[in-house]
Formats: sequence, structure tokens, C-alpha cells
Amino acid sequence: MSDAQETRTVRLAVIPGDGIGPEVIAEAEKVLDAVTDGSGIRFESTRFSLGAARYLETGDTLTDDDLAAIASHDAILLGAVGGVPGDPRLKDANIERGLLLKLRFELDHYVNLRPSKLYPGVPGPLAEPGDIDFVVVREGTEGPYVGNGGSIRRGTAHEIANETSVNTAFGVERVVRYAFALAERRRRKLTLVHKTNVLVHAGGIWKRIVDAVAQEHPDVAVDYLHVDAATIFLVTNPSRFDVLVTDNLFGDILTDLAGAVTGGIGLAASGNINPDGAFPSMFEPVHGSAPDIAGQQQADPTAAILSVALLLDHLGLADESQRVTRAVEEDIAVRGDTARSTAAIGDAIVARLRA
Amino acid sequence: MSDAQETRTVRLAVIPGDGIGPEVIAEAEKVLDAVTDGSGIRFESTRFSLGAARYLETGDTLTDDDLAAIASHDAILLGAVGGVPGDPRLKDANIERGLLLKLRFELDHYVNLRPSKLYPGVPGPLAEPGDIDFVVVREGTEGPYVGNGGSIRRGTAHEIANETSVNTAFGVERVVRYAFALAERRRRKLTLVHKTNVLVHAGGIWKRIVDAVAQEHPDVAVDYLHVDAATIFLVTNPSRFDVLVTDNLFGDILTDLAGAVTGGIGLAASGNINPDGAFPSMFEPVHGSAPDIAGQQQADPTAAILSVALLLDHLGLADESQRVTRAVEEDIAVRGDTARSTAAIGDAIVARLRA
Ligand SMILES: CC(C)[C@H](C(=O)O)[C@@H](O)C(=O)O
Ligand SMILES: CC(C)[C@H](C(=O)O)[C@@H](O)C(=O)O
Repeated sequence: MSDAQETRTVRLAVIPGDGIGPEVIAEAEKVLDAVTDGSGIRFESTRFSLGAARYLETGDTLTDDDLAAIASHDAILLGAVGGVPGDPRLKDANIERGLLLKLRFELDHYVNLRPSKLYPGVPGPLAEPGDIDFVVVREGTEGPYVGNGGSIRRGTAHEIANETSVNTAFGVERVVRYAFALAERRRRKLTLVHKTNVLVHAGGIWKRIVDAVAQEHPDVAVDYLHVDAATIFLVTNPSRFDVLVTDNLFGDILTDLAGAVTGGIGLAASGNINPDGAFPSMFEPVHGSAPDIAGQQQADPTAAILSVALLLDHLGLADESQRVTRAVEEDIAVRGDTARSTAAIGDAIVARLRA
Repeated sequence: MSDAQETRTVRLAVIPGDGIGPEVIAEAEKVLDAVTDGSGIRFESTRFSLGAARYLETGDTLTDDDLAAIASHDAILLGAVGGVPGDPRLKDANIERGLLLKLRFELDHYVNLRPSKLYPGVPGPLAEPGDIDFVVVREGTEGPYVGNGGSIRRGTAHEIANETSVNTAFGVERVVRYAFALAERRRRKLTLVHKTNVLVHAGGIWKRIVDAVAQEHPDVAVDYLHVDAATIFLVTNPSRFDVLVTDNLFGDILTDLAGAVTGGIGLAASGNINPDGAFPSMFEPVHGSAPDIAGQQQADPTAAILSVALLLDHLGLADESQRVTRAVEEDIAVRGDTARSTAAIGDAIVARLRA
């Protein structure tokens, strides 16, 4: 009882989700327990059953009550959501938009932070990958993701379907500032990725704001790449990148590709961050729910565990974050080809943390 | 004179363009001469000086007269257009939109055909590339490329910049039909790439039309990938693809990446095709004008020469097309590491054609 004042309690909303989500989250939670064990921090978790399974049971994707309950937490840990592709019962559901994107938008997660690192010992698809270590700062609340679309004469020969990318100075500037601040703490290189030669207006606002904020950061080297060229460099010279900043859609594309070149999205972690702290930030592996291998202990929990490292760092627990990252790196270094179960990987990382 | 009736004349508009454009086009024209020499076909070329250089001289990008003159030809061969990035005199020009995209849109090039093949002997970035041989059928006249955007309060903290993707049943169906017909002549696999889970309306129309046209092609195996997942497969398992069909923007991204994994866009050819024949089709390397190496005979003319093969095929000259492709393949197979000038590569391919 005398320790009461020194214990910091973090209220964590846990959304295991569908498919392999619950399996990888189980390991992530083990790691969270292990790294905070004996420290002054206590995580108090609330589970939320959300996702395709919940939708099939109740017809609800994310109710206002769910949202309010989740928003009252300090942070969120999410596994993966989404049902079996082509499931006819999900035909009218859009779990991605109704749940995942709704959380990102409602909780104003304007920074979608996606680090990519090629860990020693990880086999990747590139013959000469070089030293890969960059972070994509993907905008999370605007661009083509706003859901500003519609169609007329649907299903007829005269259908027209539009979809509008919305970009605001407010929205672009705040994420660009975050990216510059991050570059200052890293190798001081920032690459804007867009398609300014074609998307003149959406690209123009990004270019102008990056150029303006760059004035305040004369020590950060800034360059610009069209998105098509950026994909080329991601496979021919990924070590040229430090911090990339880009819109919601281009960020989606670049980070899956980045995950692939660094050895698979089984390792790619992400944070959906509200830097202002007005809403809880949400940490999740970049991978999906992979229903085909669900419940078989075949999923790699590393991306979920590295998402815990991002979560800890976001909460100011830099030491704990680094311990998790180090334990993962040590585990990765000795992985080789032997197949281990989801739990075995989690246990091995926990063992290193407790050692 | 007695042969007059057997000679077919093809009126070709040639747009060498900027940077390395004129150099690679010179080699492409040598090849065109060599492969038609002694045959019943005669190419009659008209040169059009268009591009950044022309703009700087006259202020014109593509006038109505230019367009009408070009449109009166049977086909178009284009090198590359675009000035030195950052040239302040080009600040208000948009050569890409005003010239290249204007040609594609005005001449209704609704099929942007971009084959990707890993030729034996070509070093690429992938450790285990496998057998890469696919074609991206990129829509060329709709999607986010329509230029349907704008901004208000530009340059202020209250700027909003929008950009609308426009997709019509008319426009999607015709390119989807083309892709299915192509798949019938190849390995009978068609992959639709989009982002239906986020771009619900723009993606929805594509999905519905592909599903409908698939009914008429029961022998073509159809699958669907989100664009982010497609980039993963392009580096981890590119041999899974045969024909890909996608919108203008996703096609832009996928084909640059495809060019990279098959050994560089120095080899990637493309056709901007109006299959109806109402307008001349246009053939061009996927690469840009690369002003940094212009005039130095350093550019690889192979993509331009393979664009000639696509041009010949489009004109129904299948034999001539195959001879060009074969000569290029033979040249590629013996390339090794020795640097050759642009002209030396062109001459070597011409020598094989004349052998
Ligand atoms: C599931 C989907 C909506 C999501 C996205 O497009 O953002 C995913 O691909 C991701 O990158 O987190
Ligand atoms: C130059 C640019 C407008 C063009 C495009 O985006 O289509 C180019 O990248 C291409 O792929 O041909």
C-alpha cells in the first residue's frame, strides 16, 4: 500500500479482433506483462469484442457506446479485424471502414506511424537490401480515405462513381510538422511522396506545406519523389530513406511494400497516433486477420509485439520500449528456418525479457 | 511503280521530346527502318517538337493545331517529355498534364498497355525473381487522373484541396473487356487491383464490372487484390501474375514497381492504345526524360525499341514485332556489364535484325 503513489496505471483498451488477431494479441499482452512486471506501471486492460465475428452475431460494427468506452482509455491495442474474404454474410458490412477507419478518424489519429527496419538475420526478397531503417509518417484522417464518394445509376451501363480526396492545410501541416520533428531525432532526411504532376491540387498543398515547414528545419535535408518513383527506390535503394511523409493512400501502399522488402508484414508494427493526446492512440500490426491460418498457432506475433514497443514509447516508457525491441531483435537474430508456434515465439521473447 | 499497290504506308507522328527522348527515339527509328526494310511497309514520319524545350521557346505545350496534326497520323512514337526538375521557368508549366496526359485523354487512349518480363540475363533487385511475364492493363482516361480537382484559400492556413476520381461504367467496361480478351490469348489469369475496402465507390464499380464480364469468360481465372497487397506480391511472387487490370493511378504505381523488379525501367515499354481505331495509338518507354544524363549517350534505348515492337504489333505487323522483340532479347542475353552508348545498343539490335 505504501507504493500506491509510485504506481502509474495505464488503462488499455484491447481489441483482439478476428482471425489471427486474438492469437497475436495474447502474445503481445504476455510481453506487456513481462516488461512492466516489477516496474511502477500497471496496465489495466478492458477487452472489446469487435470485428467481423461481433458483426455476424449482433449486426453492430462500432456503436457510439463502443466508441465512447474505448475513447475513455489511455491507449488501444488492436490485433486485426476482418472476416473471411467473400463471406456472403459480410457482403453489406465493411468492417474496415466501419471499425478500423472509424476508430482512426473518430479518435483523430492523424499520424499513422510505420517504421521499417531490416533486422539482421531476416531473409527478405531483395538480393542486396543494404541497411534499411526508415519510418513512414502516413497521414491518417484525410486524403482519398475520407469516404467522400458516391455513385449514380449504379449497376447500369450509365453508372458514374466518384471518390474525392480531401486535403486541408490544417490536416497536412500537423502531420508534416510531426514528420520534421521525427527527422530531427533521426538521420535528418525527409522525403515527401505524392504525385504532384498529376494530382495537382492534392499534391500542391502537400508540396507547399512541406516547403514552408522546411524553412524552420534548415538542418533537415528534404526531397520529393512521385509515388511511382518511390516504389522503385523501395526495391532498388531502400537505404536512401530516413523519414517519409505522405498521404493516407500512398502511405498504405508504401508501407505494405516496405513491409515486404524488410522480410514480411509479419514484422511490421504501426501506431495510429493522436499526438495532441486528446484521444487515445492505437497500436496494431500492419498485417490483416489472415482467416485462412486463424486458430492454428501459425501466425507470427512479432508485429503485434513490436506494436507494444511503439505503445510503450508513446506512453513515455522509453526504457520498457527499448527492452521489448531488443528482446525481439535478439529473438529474430536466432530464428533461422524452424517453424515455431505463435505462443512459442511470444514465450521466447518473454523469456529474454525476464532473463 | 508496279509494286505501288503492295506498299502499305503508315503515317507516323514522332515526338522525340526532352532530355534523353531524342537519343532513344533515334535508335527506335533505326530499328523501325531496319525491320521494315524490303518489306511491303513504309513508315512516313512527321516530327513534332513538343515538350519542355518547346514550351520555353514559345510558351506552348500542345496547341489545338498540334493535336489535330498529330491526330491525322496512323500512330505515334514518343520519347519522353519533361524539363529539369525545379527549373523555375517551368514553375507554371505542367508538361505532364498539358502534353502527355492531354494526348492520352484527347486521343482516347483508354488502354495503357504495360508488359513486364524478366529477360534471361537481366540482373534485377530480387533474390529469387522466378519467371516474370505479365501485362498490366492500366486504364488511361479516367480515375484520379481526370484533373477534376481544385482548392480554395490556397496558401492560407484554411486551404482545402480536393481531387476527384471519376469512374464510369462506359470507361471501366471497355478496358476490362480488353483485359479479358488479352488474358484469353495468354495464360488465362486476370487480377483486378483496386482498394475496394476503402474506395468503396470507385472500387465498387470496378469490382462489379469485372465480375459481370467474368461471366462471359468462364475459362479465365479471376482474382482480386487490394493495391497494397499487390505491391507485396510484385516483390515476393511476381510470377503469380498474368494480366492485371487496374485504374489509372494504381496502374501508374504498379508498372513502375514492375519495371524495377524486372531489371529497371530502361527496359519497360508501353502502348497508349485506342483499340477502336478512332484515334492513333501512342507508344512510349515508361521511363522519363532523365535530363541529368541527356545528350551523353548514356540512356538505354531498349524501352523505346520495345515500344516499337508494341507499335508494330498494334498495326497488325506481328512478324515484324516479333523480330524486334527477338533481336532485343538476343542483345539483352549477351549484355553483361559492359557499358555501351545509346547508339551502340541500337546498332547492335539493328545488326541482329539485318543479319
Ligand atoms: C484494412 C485497411 C482499411 C487498412 C488501410 O487501408 O489503411 C490496412 O490496409 C492498413 O494499412 O492498415
Ligand atoms: C509523367 C506522368 C504524368 C506519367 C503518369 O503518371 O502516367 C508517367 O509516370 C507514366 O507512367 O507514364
